[in-house]
Amino acid sequence: MTAKAHTLSPVPDPDALIADMGARARAAAKRLAVVPTAEKAAALRAAAGQLRLRADAILDANRRDMAAAKAAGLSAAMLDRLRLDDTRLGGIADAVEAVAALPDPVGMEIDRAVRPNGMALSRVRVPLGVVGIIYESRPNVTADAAALGLMSGNAVILRGGSEAVNSNRAIHAALAAGLAESGLPVDAVQLVPVQDRAAVGALLRAQGLVDIIIPRGGKSLVARVQDEARVPVLAHLDGINHLYLDGAADPAKAVALAVNAKMRRTGVCGATETILIDRAFPAPLAIVDALVAAGCEVRGDKEVAALSPHVGPASANDWDCEYLDAIVSVAMVDGLAGALAHIDAHSSKHTDAVVTEDAGIAERFLSEVDSAIVMHNASTQFADGGEFGLGAEIGIATGRLHARGPVALEGLTTYKWLVRGTGQVRP
Amino acid sequence: MTAKAHTLSPVPDPDALIADMGARARAAAKRLAVVPTAEKAAALRAAAGQLRLRADAILDANRRDMAAAKAAGLSAAMLDRLRLDDTRLGGIADAVEAVAALPDPVGMEIDRAVRPNGMALSRVRVPLGVVGIIYESRPNVTADAAALGLMSGNAVILRGGSEAVNSNRAIHAALAAGLAESGLPVDAVQLVPVQDRAAVGALLRAQGLVDIIIPRGGKSLVARVQDEARVPVLAHLDGINHLYLDGAADPAKAVALAVNAKMRRTGVCGATETILIDRAFPAPLAIVDALVAAGCEVRGDKEVAALSPHVGPASANDWDCEYLDAIVSVAMVDGLAGALAHIDAHSSKHTDAVVTEDAGIAERFLSEVDSAIVMHNASTQFADGGEFGLGAEIGIATGRLHARGPVALEGLTTYKWLVRGTGQVRP
Repeated sequence: MTAKAHTLSPVPDPDALIADMGARARAAAKRLAVVPTAEKAAALRAAAGQLRLRADAILDANRRDMAAAKAAGLSAAMLDRLRLDDTRLGGIADAVEAVAALPDPVGMEIDRAVRPNGMALSRVRVPLGVVGIIYESRPNVTADAAALGLMSGNAVILRGGSEAVNSNRAIHAALAAGLAESGLPVDAVQLVPVQDRAAVGALLRAQGLVDIIIPRGGKSLVARVQDEARVPVLAHLDGINHLYLDGAADPAKAVALAVNAKMRRTGVCGATETILIDRAFPAPLAIVDALVAAGCEVRGDKEVAALSPHVGPASANDWDCEYLDAIVSVAMVDGLAGALAHIDAHSSKHTDAVVTEDAGIAERFLSEVDSAIVMHNASTQFADGGEFGLGAEIGIATGRLHARGPVALEGLTTYKWLVRGTGQVRP
Repeated sequence: MTAKAHTLSPVPDPDALIADMGARARAAAKRLAVVPTAEKAAALRAAAGQLRLRADAILDANRRDMAAAKAAGLSAAMLDRLRLDDTRLGGIADAVEAVAALPDPVGMEIDRAVRPNGMALSRVRVPLGVVGIIYESRPNVTADAAALGLMSGNAVILRGGSEAVNSNRAIHAALAAGLAESGLPVDAVQLVPVQDRAAVGALLRAQGLVDIIIPRGGKSLVARVQDEARVPVLAHLDGINHLYLDGAADPAKAVALAVNAKMRRTGVCGATETILIDRAFPAPLAIVDALVAAGCEVRGDKEVAALSPHVGPASANDWDCEYLDAIVSVAMVDGLAGALAHIDAHSSKHTDAVVTEDAGIAERFLSEVDSAIVMHNASTQFADGGEFGLGAEIGIATGRLHARGPVALEGLTTYKWLVRGTGQVRP
């Protein structure tokens, strides 16, 4: 397919292309649904082996993508996300092997009951089926998504960004070789072979062929997916995350948490974007000074701006901004109620945290903040499937249906009800 | 609002109407999310009391709907679904009280873990938020959906069928009186006050205002919802359910199960529509005779038609037909493999069952049939939230995301992750 896409042969009809890929994925998914754990794990280890074996070809493909990206004037941040080297590729192979070691969710019993008439009920996890993943720049997603999809018994259809097309094809070829080597259907992991937007549209409309679409990327990608999709979507929206420093917070913890939550890595969706300081908090200036000292631009409301000449003014827009950069907005609020009102108005419902030594305040915050992840005395930067012990993640879901917060193997399954009777008829 | 809709005042702009209802529902949902179980239960008991107190007004409203429905020439089956009497209304009030006695899912802990760094994780159930329910004819759905929604901490926006408009308004008025009496927000249960289709369209597009749409009704309603909705949908499609009589089935059990699965109530979604008979099954004629004796029209493939003069020929269409009537299609198949192939091609993935005394065959059927409910030696008519011990149901979901099979209180919740730390920062 790679070769074909590079020739001048006509671009296939996108609907026909996706219908064909979908039918092959469905057939593979049927087989995968009943493949024992050990075979899935062996296939993933073989895929990891192929990634290592084909390192030169993958890094060469990545160099071509990098050259094109530089020529196209992509930002330094984008180039960094696109770039592979020996270490990063080793990390990708390691991650695939780590997924192989995770507990298989398929067949796990969620609950059981025996009805008064003797029927035994059992809810067990089964794969979702065919999972479409649409993503941008980072080539590691190709391997991560394939590994999580396969281990949870799903077939995946991957559509990566055009800037990473050569890297993704080389990684996909390695994964396919691993599957073939293990006797599992290579159609279990397919990469959309064309980069035109029409193919994405066809994927988004592929009801019955694709069971779920998971977009991983910026706002415009997610918005397009949510607008066009007729297939259910597990969306990952932005992380406009808040850290609330309560009047009863320990000032030293508050400083450490504020700096870590904002500055550890500014480009991740779990980074704090707004810090809310209770007017009763004893050391607001220490917070501002620590952030400035860590290299963070601080944009404050009038009260915060009055604390230090290093604080610039926040505009109305700042309270709804996912900077993904060394910038933070800081507002003073009146206690828990003020924090809850601000969070309710501005949070993207990804991750919000409170810093306080008052257990009652902490529990009210945990109960009343309606976000996927709500934290007490911990850095929002922990919002991550690996940190939560899920072994990996395919994204952090900010919607309310199916799965919420970090999504890994369990989120890629559904369940069915098994009923075991002895001839029961309903009266 | 009832009065207004009956005057010649202009129909409000549907988007503005739904935006207003949605905002009021959101505010009510916020409050409901933290209301203690006892208060929700008390409000439901008060609502049940109001339904009984207002029986005359509700039955009078229902008589007006019945008169209009008869004048419009609705079918006897439709009229029966629409009709209320003292017994049925008593049953509706009892059902609301029964929901009040169910365990509250909100706050239930799904799982917990302590991370190596000491952070304690806990996943707890929270309400979905605002639930839109679009349904047809049966006025009992107004009370059932409101009760399940309220008990699971959600605000509901109900849009019933036009044929039941007076009944629904009278039932809704009783529920609202119960909420008001109990001090809970009356906006927790709202009924769309106009019957034009544009209001349904506005509800389906109400992203951010409505968290989930649950359609309950015929194919055309569900198809419209799935086509137009921008809000996530928990769909209940048709029940093209199969009963497979294996060669190792006990013939007496097989007869009893076939008659019950098909004929107990033919209009429910759990009714069997196709019976598959293994060529090795010893008594196929006994199955056909029992169905015919029970008043069922039998449409068979050639082999089945050859068994008895009472069997008519099945057309290709019959294998994909949800009769909801005293009609069954019957095909002969070659053992489990033949049954699995037929089910894979024709099942709507609602409920499928095997009758066999061979435990190995039974377990393979349970494992390999990819339907929401898969049964062994039990009647498909048990496919029901009440029969499964869920206390009630808002529908049977045939999709794969969020909830599958009977949906009751748990299916109306999502979860959030609570993280309790002691100042942990991420390295």
